[in-house]
Amino acid sequence: MTGPIRVVVWGENRHEKLDERVRSHYPDGMHTTIGAGIAENLADRCEVTTVTLDDPEHGLTEDVLARTDVLVWWGHAAHAEVADEVVERVHRHVLSGLGLVVLHSGHWSKLFVRLMGTTCTLRWRSEHDRELIWTVDPTHPIARGVPHPIVIDEDEMYGEFFDIPVPDELVFISTFSGGEAFRSGCTFRRGHGKIFYFRPGDQDYPTYHHRDVRRVIANAVEWAVTDRPGRSLPTLQRYDTDDFFTGHDYTGPIEDEA
Amino acid sequence: MTGPIRVVVWGENRHEKLDERVRSHYPDGMHTTIGAGIAENLADRCEVTTVTLDDPEHGLTEDVLARTDVLVWWGHAAHAEVADEVVERVHRHVLSGLGLVVLHSGHWSKLFVRLMGTTCTLRWRSEHDRELIWTVDPTHPIARGVPHPIVIDEDEMYGEFFDIPVPDELVFISTFSGGEAFRSGCTFRRGHGKIFYFRPGDQDYPTYHHRDVRRVIANAVEWAVTDRPGRSLPTLQRYDTDDFFTGHDYTGPIEDEA
Amino acid sequence: MTGPIRVVVWGENRHEKLDERVRSHYPDGMHTTIGAGIAENLADRCEVTTVTLDDPEHGLTEDVLARTDVLVWWGHAAHAEVADEVVERVHRHVLSGLGLVVLHSGHWSKLFVRLMGTTCTLRWRSEHDRELIWTVDPTHPIARGVPHPIVIDEDEMYGEFFDIPVPDELVFISTFSGGEAFRSGCTFRRGHGKIFYFRPGDQDYPTYHHRDVRRVIANAVEWAVTDRPGRSLPTLQRYDTDDFFTGHDYTGPIEDEA
Amino acid sequence: MTGPIRVVVWGENRHEKLDERVRSHYPDGMHTTIGAGIAENLADRCEVTTVTLDDPEHGLTEDVLARTDVLVWWGHAAHAEVADEVVERVHRHVLSGLGLVVLHSGHWSKLFVRLMGTTCTLRWRSEHDRELIWTVDPTHPIARGVPHPIVIDEDEMYGEFFDIPVPDELVFISTFSGGEAFRSGCTFRRGHGKIFYFRPGDQDYPTYHHRDVRRVIANAVEWAVTDRPGRSLPTLQRYDTDDFFTGHDYTGPIEDEA
Repeated sequence: MTGPIRVVVWGENRHEKLDERVRSHYPDGMHTTIGAGIAENLADRCEVTTVTLDDPEHGLTEDVLARTDVLVWWGHAAHAEVADEVVERVHRHVLSGLGLVVLHSGHWSKLFVRLMGTTCTLRWRSEHDRELIWTVDPTHPIARGVPHPIVIDEDEMYGEFFDIPVPDELVFISTFSGGEAFRSGCTFRRGHGKIFYFRPGDQDYPTYHHRDVRRVIANAVEWAVTDRPGRSLPTLQRYDTDDFFTGHDYTGPIEDEA
Repeated sequence: MTGPIRVVVWGENRHEKLDERVRSHYPDGMHTTIGAGIAENLADRCEVTTVTLDDPEHGLTEDVLARTDVLVWWGHAAHAEVADEVVERVHRHVLSGLGLVVLHSGHWSKLFVRLMGTTCTLRWRSEHDRELIWTVDPTHPIARGVPHPIVIDEDEMYGEFFDIPVPDELVFISTFSGGEAFRSGCTFRRGHGKIFYFRPGDQDYPTYHHRDVRRVIANAVEWAVTDRPGRSLPTLQRYDTDDFFTGHDYTGPIEDEA
Repeated sequence: MTGPIRVVVWGENRHEKLDERVRSHYPDGMHTTIGAGIAENLADRCEVTTVTLDDPEHGLTEDVLARTDVLVWWGHAAHAEVADEVVERVHRHVLSGLGLVVLHSGHWSKLFVRLMGTTCTLRWRSEHDRELIWTVDPTHPIARGVPHPIVIDEDEMYGEFFDIPVPDELVFISTFSGGEAFRSGCTFRRGHGKIFYFRPGDQDYPTYHHRDVRRVIANAVEWAVTDRPGRSLPTLQRYDTDDFFTGHDYTGPIEDEA
Repeated sequence: MTGPIRVVVWGENRHEKLDERVRSHYPDGMHTTIGAGIAENLADRCEVTTVTLDDPEHGLTEDVLARTDVLVWWGHAAHAEVADEVVERVHRHVLSGLGLVVLHSGHWSKLFVRLMGTTCTLRWRSEHDRELIWTVDPTHPIARGVPHPIVIDEDEMYGEFFDIPVPDELVFISTFSGGEAFRSGCTFRRGHGKIFYFRPGDQDYPTYHHRDVRRVIANAVEWAVTDRPGRSLPTLQRYDTDDFFTGHDYTGPIEDEA
């Protein structure tokens, strides 16, 4: 990366309109607060914009995605309203090199479920549990600069079993005052894209104002940048013997044998 | 498991009809030979049946899947002809506990691609390369009883980059006489199901008559059995404080807060 | 495995002699109770014997190790008294194919530290915390047949950061009523040996009488058996071109070049 | 990191004195060439110095290590001459946060063997095999900017089974013209330190003049920096209930219970 990281924060922006409690924490929308936390930490190393579900094409046009390095995703109540076509497009961009940071209830977004291949279900309870976030990978760049543990006075509880593939790296484990455990900071590499899932952040709590939560999200944004030239989807190609560098397009399983 | 493992081998069964060379190796279809290799190794520890693409519902009805422990999948030319509804059904069964062994060109099946979340593409060449299969996880049950390396005199070449998630366990690495490398034996746990991908086996070569290839597939069938009672899909549930064992069904993100 | 698994439980057997409270839980020594739990679960699939620190060569002679499939290790107060020569011998056997189940405070044994290469330190507190053990790998054979979570009414607390290599498989995560988290069920493959670390079991609590703890240890014993013929240490060997199966002994870095 | 990365290249420097062929490739010693490759790639982002086996304390005094961010290690013929006390010291520094890049025959150094806990043995042959290095983790920072595959016209062959713990990340797989495969680029996190093992580089070949090999080593140096303040060894500490941040030193297993 030579220039600043181009970050887009995608917000569902529905609870904020429906629920005064949510609006009291996030008067300009959760996405705005999430974006501010990234900018606060990365300063001129990033350029942050926000888009929401109600924007045309949910704000995620081909053009926007092509000039985005890392997409941050918060959704909850309206996963089903996200158009399949947009999910398909973002999925392709992630496999081609777009970084992705999925927050909290984004675990059940069409996008994350599609990238994981599993149900991405879990156990939950919204009863003001205290959350402690323990670092189990102390040299991981995403864990840089946060206390051990991070203490969140109250948030929704998420508990195991969290039906995801085994993470490539397990960075954080959360516990809740009720006694549950959760793999709350997980990395996944998919195609040419890097993905980080981070648990905290229910709409009913002011979690995205928390200093350490903001730091982790900013760290994740930096980590998720794929340092490859261009944006390319892995493809199936035929290679002749002794030519390791010139792939030939696939023309079908039957024809190729002719 | 108290009784024998109930194995279903799914075969596309198209090359065998179209191509005399394939028929010469597999006069009763590739699925039949694959099934015979499993039965040869596991004897009365398994019951093997075969179904094919042209069977009603591709032979993979709800009823068949419900009484199958492990499904073995070979497809190549006709991935697109597999009905989405059947893929959806098998995917659900895998996440609920059906074991799955995906062979060779099955890497590009709708089912495997959906389970992985990536493109599952690779480089390839069908030019009679010799394949050597090296065990890099010598205590893995799938590697039991095979030489190091397994030598396959000729087969299609598959090379990296193979666009899959990092395997939970990398059991085998293949090299080809042309110089390519491939992660050729990979395990993945998804939901309540266990998945093994095994590379060898192009239709143009008699690979499924190879003693060691048959042994690996049989080992994988034994490994892939999920030893959980019943077949259950992970689900999202709410748990009250201090009650760890009684989940409540999800009733939606807005309603729950009411 | 054709015959029963030959299990040796190694017990330090010092607290039992010094502390009446420990003796009240384990009148015949902790090793005896641990062994009984294995026998209770595996019945005629195992043959269990016990040895202790005060036996000649700590009961771990070359001869004993050669006819042992899985060694279970509990030590705490007297790690330093275990002879380096015995540690060296057991280490060699593990890398050659001896299964190893390390319990609780065995995390700081010379043997485990040597196998891990790290400090194996952690945070702890013996204040009657309730422990919940959550399964995060529901298809792992070691998690078979136990509730989710396992509830231990009181035990010593162990918390992160646990300075171990990233486990090959993370099977269980514990939480404690004080709020700490711990990776409490971890597999590691080393050489030709399989290792499982399991957290519960301080001498001050009757943990090894707990039905589910006993089940996990028995599951781990079955899992840890290396199904390879003989017992062999990986060695450095030279292989001529085109001969993949006949290794030549190493004769030194300078001489070989002559 | 605010200042440049302080890199120390440790060279055994024996073959260079004994063997004219080695001297012809590396007239100033292999360590000098390795160091030059790092400086060439990182420019003012690093400060490189070199030390050798024959320096007092092998050049690895407490003072030198305390002001080193990343140590690069090449040894082969004289592993046994490295003093145990120095190995102990470097091991402690790695677990406390010193980055470590182990090259080629360093796989059998006392230091690497101690960090891994296994035999670190492999198969080998020095017969001018061509090596191809395939990237299997295309978004890993250590793979940045190198072709797929890297082609090394001739080098020593290393083949599986390589007796190491399963790497945290497998970045590269090598194949050799003789047909062998090798996990040739592996990361390991141990304590507060990050370790990368990279295979190429026998003394009999000019491998460390190879542009891509130099790039990988430089990438690894950047990756191996632990971005934690100070240098601290993980320690065992007791924590009181509700105090997550103030650990108490360990005073022994028997005393603590008093």
